[in-house]
This record gives sequence, C-alpha cells and structure tokens, in this order.
Amino acid sequence: MPEFDIIAKHFAPHARHPAARGLRDDAAVLPLPPQGHELVITKDMIAADVHFFSTDAPAFIAGWLLAVNLSDLAAMGAVPLGCVLGLGLPKGFTEDWVARFADALGAACEKYACPLLGGDTVSGLEKPVLSLTAFGTLPSGEALGRGGARAGDLLVVSGDIGGAGWRLQHVATAERVVPTPRLALGQSLRGLATACADVSDGLLADAGHVAAASDLSVDIMLADVPIGGGWASTDKDRLKAVTAGDDYELVFALPPEELPRLLTLGQQLACKLTVIGQLRAGGGVHVHMRDGRVITPTRLGYEHG
Amino acid sequence: MPEFDIIAKHFAPHARHPAARGLRDDAAVLPLPPQGHELVITKDMIAADVHFFSTDAPAFIAGWLLAVNLSDLAAMGAVPLGCVLGLGLPKGFTEDWVARFADALGAACEKYACPLLGGDTVSGLEKPVLSLTAFGTLPSGEALGRGGARAGDLLVVSGDIGGAGWRLQHVATAERVVPTPRLALGQSLRGLATACADVSDGLLADAGHVAAASDLSVDIMLADVPIGGGWASTDKDRLKAVTAGDDYELVFALPPEELPRLLTLGQQLACKLTVIGQLRAGGGVHVHMRDGRVITPTRLGYEHG
Repeated sequence: MPEFDIIAKHFAPHARHPAARGLRDDAAVLPLPPQGHELVITKDMIAADVHFFSTDAPAFIAGWLLAVNLSDLAAMGAVPLGCVLGLGLPKGFTEDWVARFADALGAACEKYACPLLGGDTVSGLEKPVLSLTAFGTLPSGEALGRGGARAGDLLVVSGDIGGAGWRLQHVATAERVVPTPRLALGQSLRGLATACADVSDGLLADAGHVAAASDLSVDIMLADVPIGGGWASTDKDRLKAVTAGDDYELVFALPPEELPRLLTLGQQLACKLTVIGQLRAGGGVHVHMRDGRVITPTRLGYEHG
Repeated sequence: MPEFDIIAKHFAPHARHPAARGLRDDAAVLPLPPQGHELVITKDMIAADVHFFSTDAPAFIAGWLLAVNLSDLAAMGAVPLGCVLGLGLPKGFTEDWVARFADALGAACEKYACPLLGGDTVSGLEKPVLSLTAFGTLPSGEALGRGGARAGDLLVVSGDIGGAGWRLQHVATAERVVPTPRLALGQSLRGLATACADVSDGLLADAGHVAAASDLSVDIMLADVPIGGGWASTDKDRLKAVTAGDDYELVFALPPEELPRLLTLGQQLACKLTVIGQLRAGGGVHVHMRDGRVITPTRLGYEHG
C-alpha cells in the first residue's frame, strides 16, 4: 500500500484541523498563539522491543506515544497545540494494524486537544519505530523545567509511583494501561513549583535530574513515597517501585511556604500530591530507608539503551 | 554509552541556542515570531536501506536529513526557525559514527540558521532510523502549497533535474552529494507563485501532486526540462531523469503575466528557472515527447515503500 494511500485513507480523517491543510502539503501551517507566549517543543521516539513489545496492541502503542510526549509538555507547564507523527512501519505490516493505530491516535489527540497536523511514513523497517513531535504554548518566561529548585524546597510527587513497573513485570501485555499525562497539574504549577520533571526513567532518576539541573542534592524519604501496583511495603520492593519508571507522574520542587496553596490545588484537581523529600545544598540522591539507613543507589532508574 | 552521555557529549555542543535550554529538559522553549506570522512545521523520517545506504557516510546522512526537511520549508516559502532530532541507533553503533553525524548536523544547522533545539535518542534498533522535525515561519496567509494553481499558469522548475538519480545509479556512494534546499527561492516566490512543491518523489510525480491539489491537469514539455547528471538527450533517458526524484529543486505554478518578475528574480538569486509546461483544466500528467507523442506515464516517480 503506497504511502500517499495510507495517509489519505487512515490519517487524513484524523487530521481535520485547518493547520493540517488536509495533509496535502509536506508541512503544516499553524497560527501562532497571542503575543507574550512561547512555543514548547518535545519529541519522543519509541521502538518495538526497546520501549514497547511487538505484541502490544496498536491502540496501546498509539495512546502511549502521545501520552509520553504530552507528559513532557505537562512537565514544562504547557498547553498542547498540536503534534506531527513519524510512522516507521515494518516489512509486511498489515493495513489493519495501521487502521487501529491511526484511529487510537486520532481519538487520543482529540481527547487531549492536541490535533494531528502532519508527519511522515516510512515502510520496510525490521520493526516499528514511532516518533512524535508535540507542540505546546505558555506565557513567556513561565516555563517550568528541571533547573530552578532552591535549597530547602520540598520535593513533591503526584499520584502513585511504581504501578506501571509492577504491571510490566506481573500482568499480561494485553492489560497494559495508557498513562494519563498530568497536563492540568503542570499548567497549575507555573509560578508555584520552582522545578519540575515527569517520572519516565524512574522516580529516583528523575528527582536526581531535577537536583543535578538545580545544582543541589535531594533527600527522599522512601516510606513517604505513595506506591502503586502490588508491591510489598518492604524497603526492597519500594526501591523497585521508585526505580521502575514509566509512571508519567510529575515530581517537582516547591518552596515550603507554598504548601497551603499546593494542598488547595490538589483538592481542586482531585490529584493526590505527596511531599516525599527535600532539596538541599550538595549533590546526589540520598534515599532514607525505613530502618534509618541513608543510601545512594547506584541504579536510579531504567536506562533505555 | 547511555543516552544522557551521548546527548551531553555529542549533541549539546551543537545545541547552544537559548531555546534548547542546554538540552537539560525534555522540551525546548522557543520565543514566537512577531504577530502576523504563522508557524510552518515539517517532519521527514529516513531509514537505512530505504532512503539511504547503511554504508553512507554519517556526515552525508546528517546533511541530507536536514536538507530534505528544509526543502519542505522552502516549498512553503518559510524561513527556518529551528529543528529537533529523533536519532534511532542500531545495536552495536560506534561513538565515532555518532560524533561524525552530530558534527555534520551541527554544521548544517548553523549553515542554514536552523538551530538544533532538542530531540530524543533510541538505541537497540536493527538499522539506523532518523526523524527530524523542522520549524519555520512566514507572514500569515502567505504560505505556498501544492494547491492554488490556476488554469493557464506556467509550470516552472528551478535548477536541473535528474542529477541525483543519475549519481545514485552511476556513482559510488562515497561521492553522494548533499542537496541544497532552495530556501531563498521559496521565500521569494511568496505572492508570486500560485502553488509550489519540492521535487523529492520525481518531477512528474511532484508536478502531478501540484496539479491534483489544484484540481487541474498539467502538460510538461519533456524537451524543455533542464536535465542534470550524465543522462543522454533521448526521450527514454529524459523520462528516467524526470521520474528519478531526490532533486530537491522547486516546481511551481506561475501566472504568465508574472514571467518578467520571475526572470528578474532568477538573475538576483543566480538561480536557473525554466518554464517546462502549463496547468490547465482536467486531470492527470501529460508528457509531450520530442517526437510529438503525448503520454501519461504510469510511473511518475519513486515510491518509498
């Protein structure tokens, strides 16, 4: 099936935003947000048998691909504007696979008001490789980021940690769950959090990136971390949960005097927000175990190759 | 070599634009152009042994990857703003390959004032897959595109056609040449051309896309097409040249009364511009051969899978 036909049949119906120009051109043309705004750009590339299983449902892969990109926008505090897709198909792909992938991506783009504006397809690969670039916007100068935390700031995490890692080890792939990017939370953290990251590599790794980008160290109270999935409440299992990754929660630094505003925000958004540690001078990630020991794990998260 | 180290060592030195934020975050933050402008977004994905040879020099691959994206911006009339890279590396990639690729991409980004703002790397693939998303800008409402040509418009092409196709068939891969995207020409065609495309699939195919998007047919005088490379001047060889693709010249529709302005423009830009045909009512691509026959080739260009 030629590339032009795949695009016209399966993707054009999901790319009806005027900026996509009916996918007639090799580029999208997007009106700019009002003055005083900035453009936020993120790109995540995922590959079969590296980031997902070849046997995963195409609808799961599509939803996950958009979610991981929107999670990066959430960590910056941005509002989604749109996205473009790079679709690398393997030799012998089926039209059914493409149809399911395109329909799920279209539905997810609609759900998060992040219209599909264009992209490119390639076939003849050994295994699927997907690349999505997502755009967002926010008022100038208000972008969050890994740098900016100050000594004394509290470390806060949204939701529960470790659920995705637990499911990956214990549940059939058919039951994998597409994460929900924390867009509303990220947007609300502008002007409140001093630094922010999404938890993709693992809570310890991502908290460590915030600390390093802010030239600080971070203490994490392992017993305070809200754990999802079926992990036991032992230190050993908790360490697995906080290094498993793929949570797509936000971990952020908050000046202690902002705690009342944060509690109000958590209630407004119906979002669990938990203080799990503190930033301070120095470097490194220091994990306080329930038995009183303080350790610096050599492995903080999952390294994707 | 972990992903964070590859990025820090080989890509961060080429991503010094403030919008890249030192590649510290998973997103770039780009100030918007002044009001009254639009954002143009294009994405091309290329794969080893589909679009380039695994044996191609990494510097060639990098230069070509940027050029094909900038050629899409040129066809819209846009001025480059920046780009993000998806780098899919094969199992057993060498750091030397990454270093050569990154240095060449950095140099090309600098040459075309299209700063590298971020991206994502993946390793563990069977073969390299590269995906680049490039951004540009232009005054609102002035984007060119495949649609918009009118019956009676002349069909014009820049440069020579078929040179890349000839080299692909006749020259060692070590001598492959990175194309030069026609950015200045594309920007100058705003308000002058009624429709425009870059010649990537093949001159006949891309002229056909312009005609189809404009609901017109196109007549092409084969003898008038300026041919590059070592093709013979027979109809048979000329047909190979105009269906070979990878020229990255611009093919566009021009109202006949604008011909004097176009000739002046060609002189200003020192760019060869040749009238090769005309758009008219109807549909399809009609090639006028030197022996007087008019044919509609079944194969208009190269289909990448």
